[in-house]
Amino acid sequence: MSSNYAYKTRDLKFILKEWIPISEVFAYDKHKDFYSVDDIDPIIDSIDKVAREIMAPTADDGEKNPAYFENGKVYLPESFKTLFKYINKNGWGTSNVNNEGGSLPFVIQCAINEFMTGVNPAFMPYVALTSGAAGLIQSFGEEQDKEMFLPKMFDGTWSGTMCLTEPSAGSDVGDILSKAYPTDNPRIYKIKGSKIFITGGDGDHVDNVIHLYLARIDKAAQGTRGISLFIVPKYWVNKDGSLEPNDVESTGVEHKMGLKGSATVALACGENNGCRGLLLGTYDTETGTGQGIAQMFQMMNEERLLTGSAALGVASNAYWNTAAYCKERIQGRTITNPKASRTQIINHEDVKRMLMLNKATLEACRAIINKAAYYIEVSHLETDPERKKAAAGMAECLTPLAKAYPSDEAWNCISESIQAHGGYGFCEEFPVAQAARDVKIYSIWEGTNFIQSLDLLGRKWTMGKGTVFAAFLKSIEDFISENKAVVGFEKEFVNLEKALVSYKAIMTAMAEYMTDGKPGMMPTYSRRILTATAQLYGGMCLLDQALIAKKKIEELGKEHFEYNFYNGKLLSTRYYLRNVVPNVWSVMDIVLDGDTSVMESITETFDY
Amino acid sequence: MSSNYAYKTRDLKFILKEWIPISEVFAYDKHKDFYSVDDIDPIIDSIDKVAREIMAPTADDGEKNPAYFENGKVYLPESFKTLFKYINKNGWGTSNVNNEGGSLPFVIQCAINEFMTGVNPAFMPYVALTSGAAGLIQSFGEEQDKEMFLPKMFDGTWSGTMCLTEPSAGSDVGDILSKAYPTDNPRIYKIKGSKIFITGGDGDHVDNVIHLYLARIDKAAQGTRGISLFIVPKYWVNKDGSLEPNDVESTGVEHKMGLKGSATVALACGENNGCRGLLLGTYDTETGTGQGIAQMFQMMNEERLLTGSAALGVASNAYWNTAAYCKERIQGRTITNPKASRTQIINHEDVKRMLMLNKATLEACRAIINKAAYYIEVSHLETDPERKKAAAGMAECLTPLAKAYPSDEAWNCISESIQAHGGYGFCEEFPVAQAARDVKIYSIWEGTNFIQSLDLLGRKWTMGKGTVFAAFLKSIEDFISENKAVVGFEKEFVNLEKALVSYKAIMTAMAEYMTDGKPGMMPTYSRRILTATAQLYGGMCLLDQALIAKKKIEELGKEHFEYNFYNGKLLSTRYYLRNVVPNVWSVMDIVLDGDTSVMESITETFDY
Repeated sequence: MSSNYAYKTRDLKFILKEWIPISEVFAYDKHKDFYSVDDIDPIIDSIDKVAREIMAPTADDGEKNPAYFENGKVYLPESFKTLFKYINKNGWGTSNVNNEGGSLPFVIQCAINEFMTGVNPAFMPYVALTSGAAGLIQSFGEEQDKEMFLPKMFDGTWSGTMCLTEPSAGSDVGDILSKAYPTDNPRIYKIKGSKIFITGGDGDHVDNVIHLYLARIDKAAQGTRGISLFIVPKYWVNKDGSLEPNDVESTGVEHKMGLKGSATVALACGENNGCRGLLLGTYDTETGTGQGIAQMFQMMNEERLLTGSAALGVASNAYWNTAAYCKERIQGRTITNPKASRTQIINHEDVKRMLMLNKATLEACRAIINKAAYYIEVSHLETDPERKKAAAGMAECLTPLAKAYPSDEAWNCISESIQAHGGYGFCEEFPVAQAARDVKIYSIWEGTNFIQSLDLLGRKWTMGKGTVFAAFLKSIEDFISENKAVVGFEKEFVNLEKALVSYKAIMTAMAEYMTDGKPGMMPTYSRRILTATAQLYGGMCLLDQALIAKKKIEELGKEHFEYNFYNGKLLSTRYYLRNVVPNVWSVMDIVLDGDTSVMESITETFDY
Repeated sequence: MSSNYAYKTRDLKFILKEWIPISEVFAYDKHKDFYSVDDIDPIIDSIDKVAREIMAPTADDGEKNPAYFENGKVYLPESFKTLFKYINKNGWGTSNVNNEGGSLPFVIQCAINEFMTGVNPAFMPYVALTSGAAGLIQSFGEEQDKEMFLPKMFDGTWSGTMCLTEPSAGSDVGDILSKAYPTDNPRIYKIKGSKIFITGGDGDHVDNVIHLYLARIDKAAQGTRGISLFIVPKYWVNKDGSLEPNDVESTGVEHKMGLKGSATVALACGENNGCRGLLLGTYDTETGTGQGIAQMFQMMNEERLLTGSAALGVASNAYWNTAAYCKERIQGRTITNPKASRTQIINHEDVKRMLMLNKATLEACRAIINKAAYYIEVSHLETDPERKKAAAGMAECLTPLAKAYPSDEAWNCISESIQAHGGYGFCEEFPVAQAARDVKIYSIWEGTNFIQSLDLLGRKWTMGKGTVFAAFLKSIEDFISENKAVVGFEKEFVNLEKALVSYKAIMTAMAEYMTDGKPGMMPTYSRRILTATAQLYGGMCLLDQALIAKKKIEELGKEHFEYNFYNGKLLSTRYYLRNVVPNVWSVMDIVLDGDTSVMESITETFDY
């Protein structure tokens, strides 16, 4: 169960109000008449209230009444249906995709996604996928498509999905088998194919499901180049608004270890030759080239960021539930004071260590994610070309970190949250077991974490002939030289500097392996290197935040009610820089050592 | 589901036949007329067949039909009941506790426990707990107790449990509230109390459940010293063998994230003042001292070892299922050969890395566990006092490693097994999701892994004024100096030596923290240090095995059908020494740095 909503929004507010230059974001034309820094607290507080009062009671429902498939139909947990309408009607959902002013700034959308997902991770994908689909229609649809689909997607009457994966093509989307055949109408194609793992692919919560569907037009080129994107509604929408069946059949839902309220649907389209799709954008008949992959990837940075934020949300809710449990549960005496009476387990060093590991790691993840959201938003709204390009570059470098690092670490953090509960952690009456079951998907979907690491090393390191990543590293270097003289963080800056030097040595070594004819070293070590990258950048973010916290403490004094928040920031920063960041030079040691045992292993090696 | 039994017994056979000096074990009086090295293959093969043909089909049953509680009764999955009788009647179960010759040597019991648990982890606790209870009766019961209880426990007519945990006392067993009141019969006490988390605490698979129950005799001393151990049968056994209710009531079963076929029962004893228990051993009225804790801990090394072996079994079955999946599943092209056609994913470097991480880590765990089993058995059967003592010392040092390291690593290894499956890893149709759900308990029960780490640093480091642990370290030092000149493992020996030096620096630093008035550093870092200890010892074990493998390859040549097994051993050894063992000096860096942020944190730190 996960109805125990234990979220604390203070760190998010700190990030938005005290750390990120948010007034810069709110000054852009799109937002300036609608938002100012003073709106942050009311927005966060009201959605926190929604999460606590409206969403939390639905969390159990998804667990106890999973989405199910019967006679060709998909059914959702009862409470999810009302919640879907509620969230969308009140403007917390898909309508924020709307390009018009007044929709929530992306930095806010990203921040609230964290705890809205944390409270009921099975529910939020229905909203997120609808937003993704609506965003694609908004960007690439013709005016009539927008008029036909968007209003009903914005208000929750219809939902949307992204249809990429097929039974034989997941990570290699270029190998999909779905086909599209031209008809007399140049925009309308006949669709034939099957899709699997379609999140929110069907359900009794809406009147229609608008699938954004990847298929290859007949005779188009092989590989990703030949793929186009189609609007494939479950029910075809006639000009008068009436609906008729479109030969899109659900064939089953997956039985998953977590996210049980989220329907993961298999679809069969065009089995009776009656499935029609609307082409988005153009198709070049001469070269057989479609725009589908580029279009689908248009929202990829945002989607990947929100995946990392979802993992952070689930792990954070588990962490704060665990802290609450450890404050209540009495057990044993501390080692440092064995003669005292029995004590709350939060006073045991190992329990504090588990909580601190969670706190520090999750704060680093939160910093990376929200910093990435800031750069993404600036890259969209900035008009100065240099600044726009710089922000886009930072967003490109941070996106794989923001997706993979939180979704990897969440598994370990929640493991410690379970451990802190003792035997109760294994029991479903407490929320942490479900958190572990739910969170595992995030390292897999939206591009597996291995794909993220390839993106980092293969694309981001080399983008713009290396200038983009050089600017990313220079931002860390500048931060160190500008701040390392500050009293109180000597050891932490030594570690950050050592991590940066180590990281550059990792890059040099990998470049040498490539020129030495050992390209296999890259995919062998890319995941460890991605983790090291996130720890390097996360270490900088936390130190940057700690500098603010230090000033605040000097200003407010130890008796102020906010002292424990700011002092906690100093403690988690110290913990992270001195217990986590050293992994960067450990990875360097290992990369430089150059072991090739993985590359030398063959299929039969794993028969034993 | 986990009916996919994919176990490979080759590494276990290698350990038993080629690595551990097993003929020494079989030469002891207890075994010499019954076992020789030639029996190993037939025993392992026949139990492998039992696991594959008899046990594997029951695995799904526990998942689909969890143990449940209704009207005061506990019901097991149907197939578990027949299996319980089958395993016990055929001599694979509790009868091996029997001290008489002919029962399976402990090294064999430990080895088969791995894959018998791996195939159906929810089932084996019924056998293991009955064995634990029978072992205590055998050691501390009077002749009439043994006659009354053991034959029916050996043949599976009755089962047994270990009753330690209470609602308010888990890790601190010294605080239990169960009481025992004297009666006219000096051996019989009236029992009053509640127990929770009693594995196999009740069920419709047996006619009677024999609880081995910890309680404090009225007016006994506080703390662990005042606790005694009682035989508390669910049905009291009269001298004529007839049974009558003994006021032991089941009050519920836990709903767990895994091991769903295993009934985890809450018990209420003596609610109607009618519960009787038989005292084991003696009670000193004058000092209020019982023998209960010492008695219960008599089998603790074995139980902890079998817990580590269970974690290894679940993770190994997941690994081999994953390897099989990766051989079948076609997806993408390798980075090193992107123009080739689509390939089985086992050819992708990152998939090979995930499999190798599993293989190397699990082989290290298997080595540590079975080496510990060897020392435990020698410590029981050896007659020469010096050798007996030396073996007992090694067993003491290895037990916390053998329990905690596999149960920690299993969570990470299975995470990679899920990851290698892509989206299918999250679906319960594949066995890896359940493996993750099942395995999480092993880091908690039989003493949490934090307790294991305290045992290592607090007891084992200092046992015999440090001589016991010095001998443990010397065994590694001797191994290095005797073998480091062997050609082909130069880098690996450099790393093992560096790890040993680093480890000694960790010990020195911890000693200094203690004398410097920072005792909190011990519980703060003990878990990381336990992991480093296991990696140091595991690294030595794998190198030791690799030396054998190298000779075998030289002897057999590359065309021999066993080449891939032995060469795989070289690869996993190299991977482990050069990708895992470096963590030892990373832990050293961190311990020496001496960060105190955890110790400085207070309850309110975790409000944020």
